[in-house]
Amino acid sequence: MRNIKLTLAYDGTEYSGWQRQPHNRSIQGELERALSIYTGEPVTVAGSSRTDAGVHANNHVSNFFTECAKDFREFRYAVNALLPRDIRVKHMEEVPDTFHARYGAKAKTYVYHVDNSGYGDPFTRRYAWKYRYDVDVPRMAEASQHFLGTHDFSAFMSSGTDMKTFTRTIYSFSVERHEHLIDFTVHGNGFLYNMVRIMVGTLVMIGNGRLDGADLPDIIASMDRKRAGITAPPEGLFLDHIEY
Amino acid sequence: MRNIKLTLAYDGTEYSGWQRQPHNRSIQGELERALSIYTGEPVTVAGSSRTDAGVHANNHVSNFFTECAKDFREFRYAVNALLPRDIRVKHMEEVPDTFHARYGAKAKTYVYHVDNSGYGDPFTRRYAWKYRYDVDVPRMAEASQHFLGTHDFSAFMSSGTDMKTFTRTIYSFSVERHEHLIDFTVHGNGFLYNMVRIMVGTLVMIGNGRLDGADLPDIIASMDRKRAGITAPPEGLFLDHIEY
Repeated sequence: MRNIKLTLAYDGTEYSGWQRQPHNRSIQGELERALSIYTGEPVTVAGSSRTDAGVHANNHVSNFFTECAKDFREFRYAVNALLPRDIRVKHMEEVPDTFHARYGAKAKTYVYHVDNSGYGDPFTRRYAWKYRYDVDVPRMAEASQHFLGTHDFSAFMSSGTDMKTFTRTIYSFSVERHEHLIDFTVHGNGFLYNMVRIMVGTLVMIGNGRLDGADLPDIIASMDRKRAGITAPPEGLFLDHIEY
Repeated sequence: MRNIKLTLAYDGTEYSGWQRQPHNRSIQGELERALSIYTGEPVTVAGSSRTDAGVHANNHVSNFFTECAKDFREFRYAVNALLPRDIRVKHMEEVPDTFHARYGAKAKTYVYHVDNSGYGDPFTRRYAWKYRYDVDVPRMAEASQHFLGTHDFSAFMSSGTDMKTFTRTIYSFSVERHEHLIDFTVHGNGFLYNMVRIMVGTLVMIGNGRLDGADLPDIIASMDRKRAGITAPPEGLFLDHIEY
């Protein structure tokens, strides 16, 4: 058996998320369909991250085992020809049997884009949260530093998952304005369900003056979801990078 | 009568181009419809540039005359609410009667994006020419300098317009790689029909080795469309900026 590692970019707008579902289009479902056609075998892919409906990826990593002896340098073109244009294989390589996309992930980087243009940039309308009210970017950047370090992030988690541990470590968090876009970049060893979107929603409420950044350590310590801010919408979120 | 200047951003993918047409969706048609509803008068808009089907704009400028006495600071939100999401009013301001978006334009900047990723970046698939073959960016950048100055650019014009003069001045031309995207930026006092797309198509053939950059002065001097390269597809082209 060969173990094949895939790096994907996808526009999640038209999908119900990464995870295969019986009646909805999913990234995993489309990928497994294409790989099964190409290899001639039923293929099950293990993904590094189960992105939600509408969430995008710049470098999602997954792997699958196959008996297929085809040359995987050719593989990428052939598989891309079988995939819809909003899901693309960027890299494909054979890796040792011990490689597992999900359990081997040591750290992840997410990027979140807010469109603060006021008019609604037509080119990022699928890729950014359109937020037209004034926000103070330095204030958000300063508050975001309270997320650094190891905390129980239960206050920044939506219900509806079977996660058992709620402690994660955040290594860095940046908030920067680039013209009309505000980019949030967070790097950590793992993330709870909707954690990045709740962090961003909370920071935007701080930037808009509806929450006080100085309260963030208390909000984290409360482990109470109701104390944190809103869940930012999915379209602004990109799984950017995974480290192994 | 008030003279109102509009600055638009639009994603041209779903439109037959700027110019109003009886049976197809156009940018001008959508804009005039929205402005007529808002002002309560039939509105005719004069555009700075008649972009083709599928071509985009970051800052397209147009103007119209109106008797409407409404506050145009409110205007932008109201007009955007009446427009489809892929056409957005960025700025709206009252200008002197003598301002004319088309005849007053002194110089324009166009940007053209080529997606050279090989896999087809899902996020730029509406905004870049997907070209997967190897191209030599420094060679294209060097060749592009032959376009600078004042020339008869008949060799870089498609037929089908009523233009009477073919001499234009190019002030600057740059070709730069940014990760998997190659960006062409050209600044000149005016452009013939399809001129930027033929310039880019010619440079890409030079970058790919199918044409020799040293021949570009001869190709320009020939005034023969058949000597220049292919017309690059519309989706990579952005009208970026207009000077008055």
